[in-house]
Amino acid sequence: MAVVQQTLVYDGPGGPFEGVAVWDDGIGHARPAVLVLPNVFGVKEADVEKAEDLARLGYIALVADVYGQGKRTAIGDPDYARYMAALNADRGLLRDRLAASLDALTGLAPADSARMAAIGFCFGGKCVLDAARAGLPILGGVSFHGVYDRPDLPSELPITAKLLICHGWDDPLAPPEATLGLAEELTARGADWQLHAYGHAGHAFTDRSRVQSLNPAIAYEPKADRRSWQAMTHFLAELFG
Amino acid sequence: MAVVQQTLVYDGPGGPFEGVAVWDDGIGHARPAVLVLPNVFGVKEADVEKAEDLARLGYIALVADVYGQGKRTAIGDPDYARYMAALNADRGLLRDRLAASLDALTGLAPADSARMAAIGFCFGGKCVLDAARAGLPILGGVSFHGVYDRPDLPSELPITAKLLICHGWDDPLAPPEATLGLAEELTARGADWQLHAYGHAGHAFTDRSRVQSLNPAIAYEPKADRRSWQAMTHFLAELFG
Repeated sequence: MAVVQQTLVYDGPGGPFEGVAVWDDGIGHARPAVLVLPNVFGVKEADVEKAEDLARLGYIALVADVYGQGKRTAIGDPDYARYMAALNADRGLLRDRLAASLDALTGLAPADSARMAAIGFCFGGKCVLDAARAGLPILGGVSFHGVYDRPDLPSELPITAKLLICHGWDDPLAPPEATLGLAEELTARGADWQLHAYGHAGHAFTDRSRVQSLNPAIAYEPKADRRSWQAMTHFLAELFG
Repeated sequence: MAVVQQTLVYDGPGGPFEGVAVWDDGIGHARPAVLVLPNVFGVKEADVEKAEDLARLGYIALVADVYGQGKRTAIGDPDYARYMAALNADRGLLRDRLAASLDALTGLAPADSARMAAIGFCFGGKCVLDAARAGLPILGGVSFHGVYDRPDLPSELPITAKLLICHGWDDPLAPPEATLGLAEELTARGADWQLHAYGHAGHAFTDRSRVQSLNPAIAYEPKADRRSWQAMTHFLAELFG
């Protein structure tokens, strides 16, 4: 038994894209597959670590790249949100890149394409919601401190993916009225949804690079991090049966 | 190993009270103790079944009576809410009866009085919150489809009990503004709190007597029932260490 990882270059609109697939090669059968959607900075080591944790749970994970090969930013970059901003301005393109990333995951031999899910952090949480909104082939999704604004796209279809929304109650990017709006949207579209809200947690509560954050509203919060990961674990176990 | 139960008559303001204690007598040491707070109808078989489930988790549970011996109602009674209404009108008396019930639980030999919690359903969820608000000696509490109006009592102290609020999003007794108000109260008082909200669940989602409910807003909902009990199980495990 060993957790292995593989850089994966894949096609899609505006590509090529470069993600990282992680799985336990001691498992001999196809296993559920989880797309990991990074925050504003794009693919980075912290996402690969989440994928490793998923691999240890028995899944294959693909850290998805929705920006394009080489397009990454970091804290302190003067325009660190530029790739995210471009996709926020074109949610149809974001949807198509999410679909391309799921296709790439489906193409990996250890993946059971009938049992897929997505998880994501911050902007990646929005990606999870957009994948569900678009009817992409995931059974479920988990948003960690996501962003809840609806895309300006048609939304007639019911949402069939089950959703777990892990939410810091003090998140300035998702104040109570945004959370209520999301609840209303998901209810109206018939989704099986749950919201786990954590008091005294803000945005980025899973982000260990923000342990020493100067802004308590955007900071690592260990209890919410631990509880939300545990909730995700049970959610995926229920989802994949 | 056998789960045993014992009717317990205990004193308190306006008593005597009659509860039911349940534990596994195959466990040789003191164990964490959980007060079970019934819904509007008072102590009944459904509460004892919850206590049995807690006993199987390794705890001792006491189904608390806050109305008084013999004071019970049932669905269909013309004035089924009369005992609850009397306590809603005197939250100080409710607090004192909760304290008396915790004292009764503490007095049971298998109970570890340093590790106590409370869970409750509907009006019992309000009781859990009031116990925490009053600083009664519980480490934590779980409210299932509770009611969130604040008592008209002093509330200067921080809330030290950890709280898990399991909430049906469509609950007409706790609409979104009440839920936001509770979040605000618990945040202001420094409580370690979590809200688990379930889409398409209303009030009474744990109540198996309401499987055939004619009112979908007050009805059993199996997914929310299962998920909230699982969440409680993990919450108590974290709480008691």
